[in-house]
This record gives sequence, structure tokens and C-alpha cells, in this order.
Amino acid sequence: MLSQHPLREQIRLESVLTALGNSIRLEIVRILDEEGERSCGTVGASLRTEISKSTLTHHWRVLRDSGVIWQRPAGRENLLSLRREDLAVRFPGLLEAVLRSDGAGQ
Amino acid sequence: MLSQHPLREQIRLESVLTALGNSIRLEIVRILDEEGERSCGTVGASLRTEISKSTLTHHWRVLRDSGVIWQRPAGRENLLSLRREDLAVRFPGLLEAVLRSDGAGQ
Repeated sequence: MLSQHPLREQIRLESVLTALGNSIRLEIVRILDEEGERSCGTVGASLRTEISKSTLTHHWRVLRDSGVIWQRPAGRENLLSLRREDLAVRFPGLLEAVLRSDGAGQ
Repeated sequence: MLSQHPLREQIRLESVLTALGNSIRLEIVRILDEEGERSCGTVGASLRTEISKSTLTHHWRVLRDSGVIWQRPAGRENLLSLRREDLAVRFPGLLEAVLRSDGAGQ
């Protein structure tokens, strides 16, 4: 596991909301919600618009450092997954509310 | 009512999340949730830390432009209130999840 992940109790509401307050990152979270753990490359290829690798790297970092996703090395790639349980314990109902809202009349 | 408020259907999830992704603005939202419509001055005075008027003006604008609060003139002041119904229709459960999370182990 890469080192910059906050512990569950270090995850801050403001940071999670800021991380989710971006349409690309919302789309990434929705993909991970629907598909489970996926490689960076797979998620990047699933996005509706083409995003440069450096921009994607930035988005992974914001999501990881805020505590929204796990990012772990696997071979030559990193695998991404939602920190669903940690978020559910820290902020009950928040992720569900965001995922339910995304796509509903956006 | 000041003019920059988005219509209900114009409120965007990303903008709401970004607006809420700040500890001062979260505190403002919590105050308005607990106390109902209040003047800018009253809300400013209720904050735990002293914030300059220009910084507060910035926070009102972010909250208003994103669709989180109404801001309406009343005499020499503006009154602030949560757009609770609009947010509930657009993003069911989101505001409740944020308010429930804020203060719980933050």
C-alpha cells in the first residue's frame, strides 16, 4: 500500500468533500463503486473524456490523500478501490448520498 | 433576493461538495441548520474563530453561488438561510449526512 493514506480516524470531512467536489473525481468514484477494485489504467480508460496521465495522477492523489480511495501497487500498475467501510464509519450515509445524487439529473 | 442564486435545477453536486469542503463553511452551515435564518453579522459572530469581513463575504458568495444558502437583503444586513428543500430534492440525504458527520469525531 502506498504510504500517504490517512488512517481511518485521520480522514477529515472537509477533505473528503473537497475531493468529491470535482466532476472527474466523482466519475472515478462512481466507476469504483460499480466495478470494485480496478487498475488506474482501467479506470482512466472508462472515463467519458480523455484525461492526461499527469492529470489522472493528480486525481488519484487527491482521492487517496483525502481518504476516499485505497491505491496499492500491483505489478506495474496501481489498483484503486473505494474506502467504503472507513467512509461509512466516519461519515455515515455520505458516500451513498453522493453516489445516489450523481447521475440523477446532473 | 440577491441575483446570483442558481435555480434549483441548476444546482450542481460538485459545486455543493466544493462549497461544503471547508471547515468555516461547514460551521456556517451547521449554525444555519441549528438556528434557522440569521443575519450575516450574527452568523459571523457565532463562529469559533474570528474571520475578517472580506473573508466572510467570500464564504457567503461560495455558499450562495453553489446553491447551499439563500442570501436576501433585510435593512442594512443580509439574511442567510439554508436551501434545505432544494438540496433535499436535488441530492436526497446529502445535507443530513454532512451535518451528521460534522462534529462526530472531527
